Formats: sequence, C-alpha cells, structure tokens
Amino acid sequence: MDMPEVSIFTKIIKGQIPCHKIYEDDFTFAFLDIHPKTPGHTLVVSKKQIPQVWDLPDEDYKALMNTVKKVALRIRKVLKPQFVGEQIIGVDVPHTHVHVFAYNTMAEYRRVVDMSAEPDHTALTEIAKKLAIF
Amino acid sequence: MDMPEVSIFTKIIKGQIPCHKIYEDDFTFAFLDIHPKTPGHTLVVSKKQIPQVWDLPDEDYKALMNTVKKVALRIRKVLKPQFVGEQIIGVDVPHTHVHVFAYNTMAEYRRVVDMSAEPDHTALTEIAKKLAIF
Repeated sequence: MDMPEVSIFTKIIKGQIPCHKIYEDDFTFAFLDIHPKTPGHTLVVSKKQIPQVWDLPDEDYKALMNTVKKVALRIRKVLKPQFVGEQIIGVDVPHTHVHVFAYNTMAEYRRVVDMSAEPDHTALTEIAKKLAIF
Repeated sequence: MDMPEVSIFTKIIKGQIPCHKIYEDDFTFAFLDIHPKTPGHTLVVSKKQIPQVWDLPDEDYKALMNTVKKVALRIRKVLKPQFVGEQIIGVDVPHTHVHVFAYNTMAEYRRVVDMSAEPDHTALTEIAKKLAIF
C-alpha cells in the first residue's frame, strides 16, 4: 500500500512550514489563510490527515467542530463583523479543513481570492496576534 | 420584551408549511432547499430558533453538526458526487441553518441560485424519497 503524500497542512502542524497560528489542541490546529476572503479568515484543520471531513472519526469531527465554534466566536468578538461564515470545500488540499471568516455582505462571503497574490505577512502577523486563543 | 417573529423554518418544523423532509431528531430538522445549487441540496436547521449558529447552546450545536455529517454521508452514498460541501451563511433567514450539497466542480460549489425561479417540486419529491433518513 502506498503511503499518502504528507500534506501542506501536516507540514504546517508539525512546524515544518511557518504559519500564523491561532489555536491548537490535541485534535485540531487553526491558522490564518494567507489568501483571506476578509481579514482574519482562518483555516481549522484536523490533525489527522484525512482528505474529506465526512470521513473523520466521530471524536475528531466533534473536536473539529468545537474548534470551529471557538474560532468563530473569537473572530466575532475581536473583529465585530455582522456575520461569521463557514465553508467546507476540500477540493484544493486533501486534508480536512474548514474556512471560518468574518463578513458583512454576500459579496464578501462569495469573494473569490486571487491565490497567486503575494501574501501580506505584516497584516497577517498583526491580526494573528489579536485572534490567537492561548 | 418583544417576542421574535416566528421564522419560516420554525413553521416548516411545525408542519405549518410543507417541505421535502429528509431527517428529524430531538434537536434538528433537515429538508431540501427548494432553490438547490445542485440536486439534493439540503438545509439542516436547529429546532431552536436562534439566529446565528455560533449562539446555539453546546448541546444543540453538537446535535446540529452530527446531523450535518449524517446528511453529508447520505448525500454522498446516494448521489455519489466527488465532494459534499457545506456552507453556513445566515444572512437570509435569522434561524440557524447549514447548507449541505453535492458538487463536482468549484463552479457548482459557488453557484448562485435564482431565488425567484419556480421550484421543481416533482424533482424535489423524487430526490427527497432517495435521501430521506428514517
């Protein structure tokens, strides 16, 4: 049996690739999306490298959704948007992740980000400091 | 204190407005979106009429996410799409609901549906029969 390739998210969790970290517990890890729909756009990932969220064991799924709620409440408290949205897509990286982001309009909710744009690491560092849950 | 207006979802849960029902338990209720992104697009709602998902009590939030997983696995098993997506928006109806839908391409995931279109109740009835979890 072939071993699955180590995902970029596993490398981030292991600290092999730097990230703007927001939260970590035994089952989950959260960090800023470097191509945010809106400032503070966070990815909540399972520590287990399982491609689709629906295949997570119940314990991991429950922990993931708990972290999603924690991050959403934190985004709401700190950034004070009208809404906090969530999206599970899963096409790009085959490692369970949930998008959580502040928004005020459907245009923001639906915003398609230019993934080739240079990340603004100064802004990301600033917002990660505000959102971090430790 | 003003009583909140009874939402369209509460009316559906109470059977005062008909729907294409998929699933029900003590905390949650699921039925087809009559303006689907893709066939089988389901709304999972909390029985408690609370506008934003992040304000649900933990027990209700956990039950909601359990039903989301149940519905997603059911959609995947029956409709066999490449992916099952999830979106929490919450702008339109101030009553917690989660969108769960099959998709194969990002164009399908991002599809903006014409909410003024006449629902195809024949197709909805057929697909509800296949997806129902009882």
